Parts: sequence; structure tokens; C-alpha cells
Amino acid sequence: MTGFTDADIQCVNNIRVLAADVVAKANSGHPGAPMGMAPVAHVLWTKFLKFNSKNSGWWNRDRFVLSNGHACALQYIMLHLCGYKLSMDDLKSFRQLGSITPGHPEAHMTDGIEVTTGPLGQGICNAVGMAIAQAHLAAVFNKDGFPIVDNKIYAFLGDGCLQEGVSSEAMSLAGHLQLGNLIAVYDNNKITIDGDTAVSFTEDVEARVKSYGWNVLHVENGDSDFAAIEAAIAEAKASVSAPTLINLKTIIGFGSKQQGTHGVHGSPLKADDIAHLKKTFGFDPEAKFQILQSTTDLYKAVIDKGAKAEAEWNELLEKYKQQYPKEASELVRRFEGRLPDGWEKALPTYSPSDPAVASRKLSETVLTKLAAALPELIGGSADLTGSNLTRWKDAEDFQPPSTGLGSYAGRYFRFGVREHGMVAICNGLAAYGGVIPFNATFLNFVSYAAGAVRLAALSHFRMICVATHDSIGLGEDGPTHQPVETAAWLRAMPNLAFWRPADGNETSAAYTVALLSTGTPSVMALSRQNLPQLEGSTIQKATKGAYVLEEVENADLTIVSTGSEVGLCVAAIQKLKSKGLKVRMVSMPCVDVFLAQDKAYKLSVLPSGNPVLSVEAYSTYGWGNVSHEHFGLKAWGASGPYDQVYEKFGLTPDGIAERAEKVAAFYKNRGEYAARRRVG
Amino acid sequence: MTGFTDADIQCVNNIRVLAADVVAKANSGHPGAPMGMAPVAHVLWTKFLKFNSKNSGWWNRDRFVLSNGHACALQYIMLHLCGYKLSMDDLKSFRQLGSITPGHPEAHMTDGIEVTTGPLGQGICNAVGMAIAQAHLAAVFNKDGFPIVDNKIYAFLGDGCLQEGVSSEAMSLAGHLQLGNLIAVYDNNKITIDGDTAVSFTEDVEARVKSYGWNVLHVENGDSDFAAIEAAIAEAKASVSAPTLINLKTIIGFGSKQQGTHGVHGSPLKADDIAHLKKTFGFDPEAKFQILQSTTDLYKAVIDKGAKAEAEWNELLEKYKQQYPKEASELVRRFEGRLPDGWEKALPTYSPSDPAVASRKLSETVLTKLAAALPELIGGSADLTGSNLTRWKDAEDFQPPSTGLGSYAGRYFRFGVREHGMVAICNGLAAYGGVIPFNATFLNFVSYAAGAVRLAALSHFRMICVATHDSIGLGEDGPTHQPVETAAWLRAMPNLAFWRPADGNETSAAYTVALLSTGTPSVMALSRQNLPQLEGSTIQKATKGAYVLEEVENADLTIVSTGSEVGLCVAAIQKLKSKGLKVRMVSMPCVDVFLAQDKAYKLSVLPSGNPVLSVEAYSTYGWGNVSHEHFGLKAWGASGPYDQVYEKFGLTPDGIAERAEKVAAFYKNRGEYAARRRVG
Ligand SMILES: [Ca+2]
Ligand SMILES: [Ca+2]
Repeated sequence: MTGFTDADIQCVNNIRVLAADVVAKANSGHPGAPMGMAPVAHVLWTKFLKFNSKNSGWWNRDRFVLSNGHACALQYIMLHLCGYKLSMDDLKSFRQLGSITPGHPEAHMTDGIEVTTGPLGQGICNAVGMAIAQAHLAAVFNKDGFPIVDNKIYAFLGDGCLQEGVSSEAMSLAGHLQLGNLIAVYDNNKITIDGDTAVSFTEDVEARVKSYGWNVLHVENGDSDFAAIEAAIAEAKASVSAPTLINLKTIIGFGSKQQGTHGVHGSPLKADDIAHLKKTFGFDPEAKFQILQSTTDLYKAVIDKGAKAEAEWNELLEKYKQQYPKEASELVRRFEGRLPDGWEKALPTYSPSDPAVASRKLSETVLTKLAAALPELIGGSADLTGSNLTRWKDAEDFQPPSTGLGSYAGRYFRFGVREHGMVAICNGLAAYGGVIPFNATFLNFVSYAAGAVRLAALSHFRMICVATHDSIGLGEDGPTHQPVETAAWLRAMPNLAFWRPADGNETSAAYTVALLSTGTPSVMALSRQNLPQLEGSTIQKATKGAYVLEEVENADLTIVSTGSEVGLCVAAIQKLKSKGLKVRMVSMPCVDVFLAQDKAYKLSVLPSGNPVLSVEAYSTYGWGNVSHEHFGLKAWGASGPYDQVYEKFGLTPDGIAERAEKVAAFYKNRGEYAARRRVG
Repeated sequence: MTGFTDADIQCVNNIRVLAADVVAKANSGHPGAPMGMAPVAHVLWTKFLKFNSKNSGWWNRDRFVLSNGHACALQYIMLHLCGYKLSMDDLKSFRQLGSITPGHPEAHMTDGIEVTTGPLGQGICNAVGMAIAQAHLAAVFNKDGFPIVDNKIYAFLGDGCLQEGVSSEAMSLAGHLQLGNLIAVYDNNKITIDGDTAVSFTEDVEARVKSYGWNVLHVENGDSDFAAIEAAIAEAKASVSAPTLINLKTIIGFGSKQQGTHGVHGSPLKADDIAHLKKTFGFDPEAKFQILQSTTDLYKAVIDKGAKAEAEWNELLEKYKQQYPKEASELVRRFEGRLPDGWEKALPTYSPSDPAVASRKLSETVLTKLAAALPELIGGSADLTGSNLTRWKDAEDFQPPSTGLGSYAGRYFRFGVREHGMVAICNGLAAYGGVIPFNATFLNFVSYAAGAVRLAALSHFRMICVATHDSIGLGEDGPTHQPVETAAWLRAMPNLAFWRPADGNETSAAYTVALLSTGTPSVMALSRQNLPQLEGSTIQKATKGAYVLEEVENADLTIVSTGSEVGLCVAAIQKLKSKGLKVRMVSMPCVDVFLAQDKAYKLSVLPSGNPVLSVEAYSTYGWGNVSHEHFGLKAWGASGPYDQVYEKFGLTPDGIAERAEKVAAFYKNRGEYAARRRVG
């Protein structure tokens, strides 16, 4: 390590004044944290971070996560200084419509941004996920003399991130997993939006994080003691079997007249304050968006160092390819995101003579087959392994070797009772690349992870939530565990596929589409109870999201249903046949995927002029978008044996038949437009 | 305190064998934790807990929360032994349809159950809320020599509760708030569903909880050292300025052949194991549901002691009434849940000439007026006070006096960045009684609290979520902060009112209905941006959930809209008038409340045969239930000044008018049934 010079001090102050300018020009945003964290950002980027800004996708780059995403002016400035595709004009259009510098960092928008942050607590969990992916891939691919995966994961986080429960979940697990490759810097500035942290956040953060098994370091003066910052990061890098938190004391908005107060947290500095700041740091108070030549020069050297680092790594990779051709081609395949040829042949198919099986069990069969076909598939459950049926027989747990419970090459995760952290960690796994993550809990508790599920969808992550015990069909556990409103929430979410397969073929179809949807998370709603294998279902048909299970000429009615209720509807239709009623049956395992089909296909499934009755053991909210009448639950479920619970709500072949008759009678002779315009 | 005798040992073993029988008869449930926690339950109920089972609503009773709700066989047994309205037959119909002993405890179902638990982590947060309510009411109502509110809050929790992030949030805040009235017992049995906690949960729990500022005690042998349990609870009771966690080591399923393994966690013991258990404890292995005479006798004394305690308190209350008649009548009013006469007159009304104001600001005015009119209204924000505008001018913070920042009589809360914990705490406040809680964050982050919001609705709690920055109208913060799917989720939730007021009168209406809905939580979606005061809005009309803002004879179309888009639609209709199009305008601040009106009213708002276009800056999912065509967002929002973001998505008067024209043209002359059956 080298010492720091005046050029470093000038760089740091340059970042500070630039942050003030960027936020002021937008007339919106957060100047305080960028100004306070400028020193650690400068030290990290110039002395430690391994990256090549000309190839932001370099696999072995260090990953950086800004968990306090509202401080993104800092991140954009660092990306600009380091030569990423982020120009001065982009800095000037911070928070403007159509810019690549939105109000909070969005991974798919901006070169060099690894994950979408802003919702507090998520980023640090993503970093834990990345550290897991790094440790796993290193364990699988590194060879003696070939540290082909040897990068680190860095994260910045603030008071807000530490207050959010999701960070407690992931940080506790990170300690258990002994992730020595993870280095987090806590911007301890004693300020949040409500003012001094004394009003609500007086816990002993260092003791808490130590209790998780972390290595905790302390930098008393994060504003100007660059050497101490450097020493702390160096010490953290040396930690092998524990993640590190550096408690970095800073003054928010350092240099502003209002420094150290929440006045600098979430609004631009006033013009006279910016002038004061620039004068204090020896900048021209009149000039805006200044970058000193010394700053440019210093960062030029950093950019070159990064390009050289990748070049050296590429040489190593070439040698690795020669010595370990099989491993190398697998590594390349996985990082390029190509599935192995013929993987989909692993998926089981079923015929009506096969026995009735719970779809969680069907999912277990699929996961077992896929685990063999796709070594990149990794995942686990939030302490419901035996209920979610997510662990294949010969799975090895992902565990620190010292525990004797598994290894870092293991692909099965014991997430603990930590649903939100689990999904946020999976977002980090997906962001890292080279792995395809899944996670599992009861459908009802996917809601606990809402914040992370939303970010998976917004961030275009392929990630699979195995959500078993998906309705009142879970029976005795009762309404506290029976999802009623969850499907509506997930269906209303953009870019998320909510699947509710009705049998074995549909379960295979759901996984097929989920794995092929490289930019979309999927939730698999799976039954606890047994479901019959349907006559007329195929993987191919189900991949369209909905299909005709039973066609009838001149039908009086179409019933559309999902998951465990499809079999009940098929039985109801049999009863209606004997009464002379002609009813078509549509199975719709995924509304979103169906609505994305072309109009001709959609009209072939739900023809204009034919009334449609939906049947689903959930709130009927939302079914108006594809059906005319809706049969479901009016409110909550009930505790009892599941067949009795279904009976209580009339969700039986008889109850459905009765409802269908009424709907058909209502629409009879009501004119061609009565039942039109439901789909389009 | 007295010592323990053989009768106590027999009672504990009686509880254990009863728990095994209860779960075995149901053939479903969790025997392990009840058997492991039988000793602490027995000690707590017989030596400490203040209650009168003949009046489970006694205000000054101690509150007990079973945060590990899956152990509810234990709670039901204790209620039975203690003389609550829970019979042996009720124990025998555990987890059966229609019983008052559902699979997890439901507060509104069963006498003596304070809060609905089962979803892990919630109960301990509820207990924190109860402890806050207790401290607050004690500070407000107690007088020298009149400790009229002097009860304690007890909670049991397990490994799962401690792993959930929500408990970290609430426990950290409880430490900050120095809630000495809160005593939690951690059932440290080293087992969760996935097996030994060594697989995922190896943090130092005691150190972690100490870091929050808690008093942490330790009982090494929770299986048979009753004296140590008693001593720990007594020591906890003496803690004045810190909540206490008792780390109680127990063996799960104590007495079973499989004790200490996850085999006893979530399924009934086998018949031979139960026989073994009964033999071990000296019970008849053939007899089921035995209660020894010595058990009955011992608990009879406990029941009598409780009745006497309430009688003594009633005498104290009588004296208090004489000496402090004003305070006493206020205490009575608040615990009986009666709002003060004329409170609703405090609500402001507006006319179209009043200036445009953001609905978050309108909400601030309402809260300021209500704070004066309703001393029971207490609440705060998850570190967004200045953005949510939830703090009235002369509010005092609820803080430990030693901080110098407020007092326990204070009514404003600094929840920190802890949305999930905040809402779960508010559930506890509502459950305690005597207060009406509200909380606040951005609408997008109500999702972080999904688990607790759901339980508010299921538990019939009056609780208000102030959810500002409710759409793309928040502008620059961007899609990470712009809710798109949240309204659909909340509208699909049974027994929850999602309000999105369009102006001042509607904001007043929303709060009116929310406060009158004693068994329903409400979410107020409020704008960051200014909204005009509408011509035609009144509090009275808006309380119906939807009403006609502009009526036209022989209309071509009805537009229905909510919140900030209503004003845009009104402007669009003006434009359409000049083109000769007749358009009715309906404002629908609360879909649920509207759908609960009688059919005649609903048809007067949305007449059959008239096509309806919905306009809302969210996902259109769900609008099919009341409208024919839907205009909203196809996916996520965008970061930029809010007016430009609205423009980008065509949500402007011009864009809406263009859409309306097309819809009217499509439905013209399409026959009377074309636009029927949307509401009913
Ligand atoms: Ca801070
Ligand atoms: Ca346990």
C-alpha cells in the first residue's frame, strides 16, 4: 500500500463538490451521504476494488453494492471517474426522465451498477447473496494455482439498512456461513430522516453484528483519516472465515454549513452553501461540475490498473482452459447463462393413469431431475425443507467446511426462518451470475419477502420461489397460514410469473418457462394435497399459460380455473354433462404468460361471446380481467381437515356445478355482446 | 414466593401428556414446544400472571402472547385449566372445522387469546406494542397511590421468532424505549423444522438481545428447575428500565422417546410414544385427556386468586373514580372504545375555491385536528416524519424520560426505519385497547410490512396506515419507490379498506370511515403532489366509497378514477364536452367500501348498460371487477419530475380524453348487455 497525498484529498473534495452540484442541478436527491462517504469511496476504488470499466461484466471483478441507494450520486460519480459508460452529461441529468442516472440505482439501466437498491436493507442482503455465489463458484471451479474466482464483495450501508429487519436476517446467516469474502462499510453518521439516531436507534451496532459471528472493525475518523480507512479494508480483506463490518464514523454532508444534521440528508444544498463548500475546499465557487486535472490523472491510473488486472486474469483463464478444459467450458457456459443442451428432456411427463400427487411433490421430482441436469441450480428453504420438498436426495448443504455439515461446493441452503432475507439473498445470487437460484416457503410467507420479490421483478432476475401449501388446501394450520390475497398481489406485479400448476405436466411446464425466462422471476404456487393427472394436459400446452382442457361445440359456458381447483372443475363438468349443459374447461396455470400470447390464441382459449366463470380458492379480485363471473373465497379460510374446508366454502364438484348452471342460465340469450371484450 | 411441591411437578407432566393427547386426537399439530414449555407456562400462570378468567377483558390484566403460535395446544390447555371459556370438548376438537381451537391462535375466536399468532416473529412485536400501550396509559392515568394501570406484558417466543427480521426491528425499538414492563421467554430448544439450529442459526442470541439494550437472563434447566424459572421471572419483573429476555434452555418434546429432535416438532407423537410418555410420568397409559385431581385443585386456587385480584382492582377503580372523576371517565370511555361525542366535527371540509393541496398535507391537517379531539390517537412514522407529515405541531414524542426527548405520556412515535415491526407493534397497540394506533411510511414500503398488515385485517384491528408518496407522482425517487402493484394486493385483502382520496373532503371522509370501522384496518394512499379541491365532493358522499362527481343524462361513458388521477379525469371530461361527448365522472376513493353498499346505490353510481373506463396510475389488475376498460400503467414507473412521468405514460387530460373517446366509440350501439354485469 502507498501513502496518501494531497491529490487524494483533492479527489475526495472533488467528489464532495461534484455530489453537491449533481443533486443541486436535479433539484432533488441526497447530497449528505455522498459527501460523507467520499473518503471511503475514494480509498476503496483507488486502492482495492478490482474492476475493468471497459468490461463491466468481467466475471472475476469485485462486486460493489450501495445498500444505502439514496446515496447514488456518489456511485454515479465514481462510475464516471472510473471510466464506465456514464458521462458528465449523464451526471447532469441525474433524476431526469429517460436518463441512465435515476433517483435510485437500477441495475439494468446503468453500466457498472450491480443491483437495484434504494429500498433500505436490500443491498446488504444482495451482497450476502453475491458472497455466497462467489464462495460457491470458487469452491467448484478453483484449482491449485488457479484462483480463477478470487474476487471480493463490498457493500456500503447506512443506519436505515441496519434498522430494517431484512438485514438482520441476511447478516445473521452470513455470519453463520463464515463468508470471509464479504466486506461491508457502515456509514455511521448518526443521522436519519427523522434527525439524530438518538430518537430511535440506540442499539450497540458493533455488539449486535459481532453476535452474528462477524469481524467488526472501527474507524473513528472517516472524514479525513484515509490511512485508517485503508488499514481497515486491508484487515477486512485478510479475514478468512468471517464477514467484516467496518464501523466508519462520518459527518453527513461534510463541508456543508449544515454538516452533521438531517438538513443535508434528503434535499439539495442551497446555492450559498455550495459556494461555501467550494471555497472551503479550494474550488472555484462559481464553476459547476468541476473535475480537477489531478483527479482525472489519479483515476486514469486506476482505470489502467483495472484493465491490466483483467488482462492478467484472461491469461490465467487461457491456461485454465488448457489444463482444465472441461471445467473451463462449464465455467464459460454458466457465466454466459447458456443452459446445457437438452436440459429440458429431464422434465417428467405424466398421463391420466398416473397416480394423484401433490404438486409440491411433483415439484420435488422436477427439482431432483433438474438438480442433476443443471449444476447451476442452487437453492433451499426458509426452514421448511420437509414441507416444501425442495431438497433432492443426494444434495449437499452449502455450509462452511468447519461445521462438518457440508461445504461451499454444496448447492442446498438452510436459510433459517428468514423469508425476506432469503429472497433478497437470491437476488444477489442471480445478480452475481453463474448460478440459478431458487428459494422456498409457504405461499403465505412469500408476503414476508414482498420487498425483495418486487426488486427481483424490477431487476429482471431469473429466480424461482417455490411456494407450497398454496391455499385453504393446507387445512389445519388455518387462516393465519392460508393465502387468500397473495395471488392477486403477484399477478398485479409487472414482470413476475405466478404459476399455479394443476398436475404433473403443468408443473414441468412451469419450471420450463421459469428457466427459459432469463429476465423474469417466477413464483410456483404448489399444493399440499394430492391432485389428479389431467386428461388433456401436456407440457407444451401449459407453457402457453392457459389452454383448453376440454373443448365442446356450442358451449353454454367456459370454466377457467387454476391449480388444485382444476380437477374439481373437471368433475363438476362431468356432472353438468348429465344435465345436458355443455361446458368448456380451460386450465390457466399462469395468467401473465397467457395474456402475453397473441390475440388469436387467446380468443381460441376464451372465445368472444362465450361466458366465462372463474374458479379459484382465493379472493376473486382480479378475475374480472379474464372472466365474467368469479367463484372463490369471500374472505379468509378456516382451520380444519382440508377436504372439510373446501366443502365449507362450496368449492366441490357439486358446488361448482351449481354455480356454473346459474351463470350459464343468466347469460343464455343475452345477445352476442353480453360476454365479449374480456380478453384483448 | 412459595416453593414447589410434587403437585407442581404433576401439573407440569399433566400439561405435557394433555398436549400429546390434544395433538394426537387432531392428528395434526405441534406437540414438542408445548411439552418443552409446560414448566415455564405452569410457573408463569400459577405464580405471576394476573388475570380473571371469568372476565378475560379486565383492562388491568397481564397480557400474554404466544409468539411461537404453533405451540397453541399449550395455550389452549392453560386457558382450560385456568377456567376460561374453553372446555375439554374444545380441546378435543383442536384444529377441527368450526372449533374455537384452530391450528394457530386467533384472537377473535377464542376467549383469553390476546392476539393472533403463528406467522413467526409477529407475536413478540405485538407484545412490544402492548408494552408501549401499557406504559403510555400508566403515564397518562396513574396517580399517586393509584396504580390503576400496573400490569405486565409476557411473551413466549422460539428460535423462528428470533430469526425473523421483524422481531429484530421491534426488539431493538423496545430496548431503545426502555420497556421494563415487557418480559419475554425464549424457548431455547435448539430445534427448528429443518433440524438442529446448528444448520442456520448459530448467532449469540444473548449478546444480540443485550445489544438492543435488553436485560438478558438465563435458565440452564428449563425442564425441571422450577425455582430457577420463578427466580428469573421475578428478577425480570423487577427490571424497571429495560425489557427482559429469559433465555430458557428446554428439551423439545420432553418425555417423548424422540425428545430433543425435530421429530416431535410438527407432527403428533405415535401411540406407543404417548403410552411411554404417560408411563414415565405416572399416568394411566390407556386413558386419554386425563386431568389429575391435584391439577384441578391447584388451578382452582389460581382461578380464585385471579378473581380476587380483579375485585381488589375494582375497589381501587371506584376510589379513583371518586378522587379523579374526569380521568376515570376518560379511562372508561377509552377502554370501552367509545369515541368522544362530536369528534367528527373536527374534520375539515373544503370547497372548490380552496387551493390545491397534496393529500399527505390534507392528512396532516386531519391528524392535527384529530390529535386534539381524540387523545387516544397515537402513532408515528418509520423515519419519514417530514415526508409523511404525520406529526402534529404540539406533539410530544413517546420516549423514555431519561432521554430528554419526550415522555411515556407522549403520543408520537419515532419507529425508525422499521416498517414491518412498526405495523406489528401497532397491532399490539390495537390489541391492548385504550388507544387507536396509526403508522406511516411510503405506500411502496407498506409491502415491507405485509405480514403484519395481513394480521391486522385477519384480527379485526382498527389501525391506520398513512401511506404517502402513493404513485409515480412521487417523481424523482423512481420505480424503486413507486408502487404499482400495491393497491391490487390491498384491495384483494379481506377486511382491509384501501383509501385513495382525491381531495380534502375525501381525505376527511377516509379518516371518518377508518375511525368508525372498529374492526377494520385502513390504508390511506396519499399524494406527494398537489391536488385540486373537486367540485361536487363532500365528506358524506365520499364515505360511501364511490359517488358520482359529475352526472350527465344519456351518457356515452362513465370514467371512474381514484386519488390524484380524479382531477386529471375531470379536466379530460371538459375537453370531451367540447367534442360533444357526454361523460359521467365517478370518484372511487375506496373500492371495498363502495362494493359493500346496497345494490341500488351501486347501480346509481355505475348504471347497467353504460360502459365504464377506469383510470389509475397503477397496474390495472383488478379493475375488471368494476369497469370494462382500464387505463393505467403497463409496468413500472420512471424517475423524473412527476409531471413529466405522468406525461410519459399518457396520464394527462389529453391522454385520458383520447382513451375515453376510443372506448365510447367501441361501445356505441353495441347493445344493452354489452356493458352490463360489472357490479352486483
Ligand atoms: Ca445515517
Ligand atoms: Ca426451537
